[in-house]
Amino acid sequence: MKYLVSGGAGFVGSYLVEELLNQGHKVIVVDDLSNGNESNLKPSPNLEIKIANVVNVKIDDKIDGVFHLATVPRSFSLDDPINDIEINCKGMINMLELSRKNNCKIVFTSNSGIAGSMDLEVPIDENYPDRPSTPYDADKLVCEHYAKIYHNVYGTKCAMVRFATIYGYKQVVNEKLNWKPLVATFLKQMKNNEQIYINGDGNQTRDLTYVKDAVQGVIKAMFSEVIDSQIAIISTQTETSVNQVFKILKEKIGYDKEPIYTDALKGDLKSMKLSYKKATEIYGYEPKYTPEEGISEMIQLFE
Amino acid sequence: MKYLVSGGAGFVGSYLVEELLNQGHKVIVVDDLSNGNESNLKPSPNLEIKIANVVNVKIDDKIDGVFHLATVPRSFSLDDPINDIEINCKGMINMLELSRKNNCKIVFTSNSGIAGSMDLEVPIDENYPDRPSTPYDADKLVCEHYAKIYHNVYGTKCAMVRFATIYGYKQVVNEKLNWKPLVATFLKQMKNNEQIYINGDGNQTRDLTYVKDAVQGVIKAMFSEVIDSQIAIISTQTETSVNQVFKILKEKIGYDKEPIYTDALKGDLKSMKLSYKKATEIYGYEPKYTPEEGISEMIQLFE
Repeated sequence: MKYLVSGGAGFVGSYLVEELLNQGHKVIVVDDLSNGNESNLKPSPNLEIKIANVVNVKIDDKIDGVFHLATVPRSFSLDDPINDIEINCKGMINMLELSRKNNCKIVFTSNSGIAGSMDLEVPIDENYPDRPSTPYDADKLVCEHYAKIYHNVYGTKCAMVRFATIYGYKQVVNEKLNWKPLVATFLKQMKNNEQIYINGDGNQTRDLTYVKDAVQGVIKAMFSEVIDSQIAIISTQTETSVNQVFKILKEKIGYDKEPIYTDALKGDLKSMKLSYKKATEIYGYEPKYTPEEGISEMIQLFE
Repeated sequence: MKYLVSGGAGFVGSYLVEELLNQGHKVIVVDDLSNGNESNLKPSPNLEIKIANVVNVKIDDKIDGVFHLATVPRSFSLDDPINDIEINCKGMINMLELSRKNNCKIVFTSNSGIAGSMDLEVPIDENYPDRPSTPYDADKLVCEHYAKIYHNVYGTKCAMVRFATIYGYKQVVNEKLNWKPLVATFLKQMKNNEQIYINGDGNQTRDLTYVKDAVQGVIKAMFSEVIDSQIAIISTQTETSVNQVFKILKEKIGYDKEPIYTDALKGDLKSMKLSYKKATEIYGYEPKYTPEEGISEMIQLFE
């Protein structure tokens, strides 16, 4: 089978491409390399890389499925909401049109940030009210609606996952671009013995989900029977605070500085704990890595 | 006071501009004339018309409020979702940035189609689940979220209305552009003694709201104390079917043909009945025209 992976040279995308190639599939990667890197992908006769923008790329090959991962990261969103719309919203429409043309399924990677700050003691699920706190989250939400509309109007086959906070090796840290994913940034700073800054009091939590579990989720979404644009959360269902991440890394690496606490980020989420129950029920998804296990593997890969 | 009205040369916009001028305000209209027309606006020393696109227009004047009405109509949406995103989503961000820069309130005219098909016996309210059935409706929804985000992050003052189906004199009928608002299209066709076609069985209903009531609603929204991006429905809270509209017009005009029924439109709403209770409570909005009264005034203006 031949699959298209948008954002396939990126962090999650490159793990997904590797897994699809391992399973014997052909893969077309569409990536504009704005955040991805060709070096993330091992050359393969079954792999074609198209350096192109997801908004206007044209694909002539017959394809059997679309994994739509390409996105402008959340951290750029408030500074440039127009570009977020340009890439995230229009890119979704182009990928839906591609699926419609090929009569093939699309798996869209949405974001759990749609639910905004989560104040409940129980993990939240897919029915939690929509309270996006950045244009990025709002745009992920509208993309989910586009998929539902395409399914209802044209019968386009679709499954959607909402990612918790994904971390892992190869995740890009680019402080100039304000692209500072939690675990990867701390790991890099500790390895370089740099001072670490924590936004707010560090008690804000994330549901940290290892990249290999994220890939497991989207692959199960594609190969499941679900075609009616259902949404399922891919998470670890565990809250880990920024301070805990600091502590786990500090102990494993032997970093000896204390963090400096700065102002909280605008629109930042205070807490995150997400139920993956539905993904288990409809796809058989189960996370295989606790945050500590995932972080340990990440440190080993870094060395 | 000086107000900006985006889409001010359009149907609802031109009524709004007239009312603001009557109240002694200065008005800047921003309109690209894609659907509006300068002839809708009477010249006035207090009126400035900028022929420009709402997405990238720059306003140097200090303004006291923004009425954001400019929109690509719903009927183009499935055929060109990319343009819908370009104008409706990016236009909203540009207008929010303008309000933020001027520290002034923005009133956004959203759409009740966000709720999708309404199967309940009671009129639906602002808390009804979001089930947009076209990209247009989804884009109106994401614009509401942008406003809430701007309010939460930057304190931007905002009130939003969701319009029912607005009708009235000056509403554009352009069959080539597939722009066929219900009442205006039938009126024009009957006056020209043309054959009338009805999509589906004609039992689909709309909550028909006269343009002067719509203008009352947005003006009350602007001059109310509401600044926290609350949403209120502006409607008549009355269901009128397409067949009933046909019958009212046929009798008043003396049209003697029967309609021809054709296929239902993709994504068309089956029913619409919307509660304006919240708009009454927070703005004092009350519709002044029943559908029959509004249609009668419209016929008189046409002659």
